[in-house]
Amino acid sequence: MYGFSVQVNRPFDSAVEKVTEELKKEGFGVLTDIDVKATMKAKLNIDGLPYRILGACNPPLAHRAIEADPDIGLLLPCNVVVREEADGTVTVAFMDPSAVLKLVERPGIEELAAEVKGRLERVRDNLAS
Amino acid sequence: MYGFSVQVNRPFDSAVEKVTEELKKEGFGVLTDIDVKATMKAKLNIDGLPYRILGACNPPLAHRAIEADPDIGLLLPCNVVVREEADGTVTVAFMDPSAVLKLVERPGIEELAAEVKGRLERVRDNLAS
Repeated sequence: MYGFSVQVNRPFDSAVEKVTEELKKEGFGVLTDIDVKATMKAKLNIDGLPYRILGACNPPLAHRAIEADPDIGLLLPCNVVVREEADGTVTVAFMDPSAVLKLVERPGIEELAAEVKGRLERVRDNLAS
Repeated sequence: MYGFSVQVNRPFDSAVEKVTEELKKEGFGVLTDIDVKATMKAKLNIDGLPYRILGACNPPLAHRAIEADPDIGLLLPCNVVVREEADGTVTVAFMDPSAVLKLVERPGIEELAAEVKGRLERVRDNLAS
């Protein structure tokens, strides 16, 4: 698998707000924000459920990653998906940096990925509680 | 490896413009644009070389991907990195969707990834020529 997730007991917009706040506590800013529902409506005229892709970036860790491998930006930032299911529940899913950065065979990347993963797992745990 | 790249014979800003134009011809809009150099300067006061991460999305293909696996947004959009090297040359690198989407074990994803890859390879070829 390439991610881990949690169901949250909140409406969609409040879940986006809460995950942004919890990411900040772990040093991640949200650098990108794709509103998939709005994009699919605008481009394909398809009505979907609320779905956002937040691109989370911890600058010191991202800097270390790019120093180790200049092409690693292809796998950054760390995506966090907030999506509403058909039954109204809201799921927050996190890219697993250890799974994705396994594609990068460079010294030091495994430790870096583990550090990022630990931080995202704390965000997940704080959303669950 | 998780990407493929090409060196382009243009200044940095012109390379960003050209790749955006060539992506459009293959049905990709640029949904996100991270200026890594500016981010590192603002957050860490580190002076780096020009480096942008463009998030390219082909809406019909992205829609098929999300239908196949609702968490696949964790691996979207397809990143394209434009970066200047220390010697002034400019490299454009593409995420290899076949490598990255191998992490997703769902029927149909391999064919979808191959289609996206084919389009990105045409963009690469048009930048090289």
